[in-house]
Amino acid sequence: MIKLNFHEGLIPVVVQDAKTKTVLMMAYANEEAVNLTQITGFAHYYSRSRKKLWKKGEESGHFQTVTEIHVDCDSDAVLYLVNQAGAACHEGYESCFFRDIEGNLLYKPIFDPVKVYKK
Amino acid sequence: MIKLNFHEGLIPVVVQDAKTKTVLMMAYANEEAVNLTQITGFAHYYSRSRKKLWKKGEESGHFQTVTEIHVDCDSDAVLYLVNQAGAACHEGYESCFFRDIEGNLLYKPIFDPVKVYKK
Repeated sequence: MIKLNFHEGLIPVVVQDAKTKTVLMMAYANEEAVNLTQITGFAHYYSRSRKKLWKKGEESGHFQTVTEIHVDCDSDAVLYLVNQAGAACHEGYESCFFRDIEGNLLYKPIFDPVKVYKK
Repeated sequence: MIKLNFHEGLIPVVVQDAKTKTVLMMAYANEEAVNLTQITGFAHYYSRSRKKLWKKGEESGHFQTVTEIHVDCDSDAVLYLVNQAGAACHEGYESCFFRDIEGNLLYKPIFDPVKVYKK
């Protein structure tokens, strides 16, 4: 088991679809979130804005089952390979990276966020 | 052009091989690094440990030509799609994520770091 290097208690997590290899999102985890991900098999993160542990899909039902966790050379970033239920992005797209830097759309929406997120 | 949300002057960058879709590394960029990446077509980052702008490959020759830059839903993370010369990882592997969390090796080395990095 590799000892992870948390920076101010957090480690960046790159999330990739295990089958399509699409990069779905990037988020942060604290040690508890990584542990819960390993124990439960569901992706957990830490929200810096809400200052709380967060299980992906807890509101939307769009859970991520984690098939592998990879660690980078400096042990200060991790990669979750996941099977994604629904879509990763809360705006309805397969990937959170659904635009290029010029603002062009790269994906079509999979779901209507208004119907999935109640608030 | 999307206005990026830098956090304490930095934005996390996920780096993916444009052809193989392998996630190669994760690093941080400041605004100058993103601008230089766009202007030059070569991936630039900001090193938190060395506190300086950094062009990938400046020491190793393992440059990354950036074919696309994607931005996530909150505009607080970016994805560089790159063509990688040599190998991304300074330890000689195709990807910096060359181990799983148990420490098992996932890749074979492509180059010998001792021969590529002089110091």
